[in-house]
Amino acid sequence: MFEARIYISLKKGILDLEGKTVKHGLKSLGYDQVEDVKTGKYLVLTLSTADRSAAEQAVEEMCEKLLVNKVMEEYTFELREVEE
Amino acid sequence: MFEARIYISLKKGILDLEGKTVKHGLKSLGYDQVEDVKTGKYLVLTLSTADRSAAEQAVEEMCEKLLVNKVMEEYTFELREVEE
Repeated sequence: MFEARIYISLKKGILDLEGKTVKHGLKSLGYDQVEDVKTGKYLVLTLSTADRSAAEQAVEEMCEKLLVNKVMEEYTFELREVEE
Repeated sequence: MFEARIYISLKKGILDLEGKTVKHGLKSLGYDQVEDVKTGKYLVLTLSTADRSAAEQAVEEMCEKLLVNKVMEEYTFELREVEE
């Protein structure tokens, strides 16, 4: 069994409105040391695949087909074996 | 300067509707090996703080005051020093 942690973030150059909003909120609370805020999503998938390379390929396909908006987003993922 | 990576996820027992939706979507694409999907947010904050413990305390405060819904969410964070 494998656990895949997928991190999805906006590509460089794409305006991160949520990040700007969070930054504004933190500054208004007095946290002036906040220079920048970037936001993203992460997904934790549990896969019943027994084979690492099969799991890797499946995660890449799932990202390309459904999970990631390839126009605006980029992704990275980590894969680790877990107990049943 | 410090970079804080904050990972915010739903507490155990809280229904992850987005996770269920993603799981259903992946199964409908034929990825039957997907046993479970959990979703979360992550934030990358750049802090102009020079001192690690001050940065750590500020991140905890920001999470407690604004970034995390303490009723439904829990969080972890990593802190690393970065070049100006």
